[in-house]
Amino acid sequence: MDKLSLHNPLFATYVVAATLLILKAVSMSWLTVVRMMQVKGGFRAPEDLKKTALNPEPHPAQIAPNEAVDRIRRIQLNDLENIPFFLFAGLLFVLSDPPLRLTQWLLYGYVVSRFLHFAAYLTARTHETRATLWTVGSVILIFITCWTLFAAIRG
Amino acid sequence: MDKLSLHNPLFATYVVAATLLILKAVSMSWLTVVRMMQVKGGFRAPEDLKKTALNPEPHPAQIAPNEAVDRIRRIQLNDLENIPFFLFAGLLFVLSDPPLRLTQWLLYGYVVSRFLHFAAYLTARTHETRATLWTVGSVILIFITCWTLFAAIRG
Amino acid sequence: MDKLSLHNPLFATYVVAATLLILKAVSMSWLTVVRMMQVKGGFRAPEDLKKTALNPEPHPAQIAPNEAVDRIRRIQLNDLENIPFFLFAGLLFVLSDPPLRLTQWLLYGYVVSRFLHFAAYLTARTHETRATLWTVGSVILIFITCWTLFAAIRG
Repeated sequence: MDKLSLHNPLFATYVVAATLLILKAVSMSWLTVVRMMQVKGGFRAPEDLKKTALNPEPHPAQIAPNEAVDRIRRIQLNDLENIPFFLFAGLLFVLSDPPLRLTQWLLYGYVVSRFLHFAAYLTARTHETRATLWTVGSVILIFITCWTLFAAIRG
Repeated sequence: MDKLSLHNPLFATYVVAATLLILKAVSMSWLTVVRMMQVKGGFRAPEDLKKTALNPEPHPAQIAPNEAVDRIRRIQLNDLENIPFFLFAGLLFVLSDPPLRLTQWLLYGYVVSRFLHFAAYLTARTHETRATLWTVGSVILIFITCWTLFAAIRG
Repeated sequence: MDKLSLHNPLFATYVVAATLLILKAVSMSWLTVVRMMQVKGGFRAPEDLKKTALNPEPHPAQIAPNEAVDRIRRIQLNDLENIPFFLFAGLLFVLSDPPLRLTQWLLYGYVVSRFLHFAAYLTARTHETRATLWTVGSVILIFITCWTLFAAIRG
């Protein structure tokens, strides 16, 4: 069967997991926008203090760090450190023809771990809670990467 | 036809858009280098204050934030938050066999939106201008991601 | 032959290089964790000052910048600015059917350049040393991206 066909359940599993993670990652940008509008601040560029229709009363404090906005930026940076590498590892993993059930557990498990990590970070749970959820995802990522590397070396 | 052949116009469209965006993103690193050499500063690591052939008269102010350099770093961070996810979404999108003309509009449209966003950010246009250009790209990204997700769920 | 088969030496070369780079990039997160535990600091979120089993005596200085931790974060950010784009460029490059020996030199050369860059950054070598190693990798990345773009335009 065509490996890259959506009729191939391995590839379809990857595409569902990948698109959900992309939507998750992109939502962080929009959430940053929402929070910047709520607090009317947390901007970063000097020109964001120009008077415009959307910012009729600019004030220097608007480019000071703002925790409500910075929290989303930290979550987004964590996404950047993890999700792109998972998207590559997952694609190469499904191309190495792994068992379907295992693939579903690992890929959907990663998606769930990232959504729970987001919930824990957004609501400021303890470092332990956040770290545990991050660790689940990171171990899955390392596992599928090593699996794929060994498959490539065996040829 | 081979989906991943450059003779397949859908895949060729993706490859042209993807390589242009990669070159754009990589150029930000080089532009940072150029600006660091112009202002002889904007460094970030303590060891960058060591006396060397390229930095014969080191000074502590060289590792202080420098707006000319930081502007490029902000543009680059914006690239990191957007382009890798578009590159994945675009690849999976073209594999879902979308109409060619639509694909060309969306993928080349995204490339144009990112180049205009760069121009607006570099020349310090208002937040509204920059945000509008970013929004065009983000909406394209969300559209192709949702399209692909629905195609995968339908199977 | 199936372009995406691990029996295809071009694709296998890519998969080996890609998985090594993914493991390298993911290791930066774990190295950050190790250093945060060593210095009991370098945290970033306000809630990381909550008293927990792993942080029995929280102190405000724990969320101050810490050079031992920040060094790894700078290395990781450099990875984010480079590795994902290489992973895309490398994949599209091998799909354009380049010569095998050239591909091995370029892809494995990039991997070596990134590991040496890491060693130079970790041990705080001069800016020149670090910049030279980064440049080798960046030139490889630009070369394979331009090669692929021209192949796509020729069709």
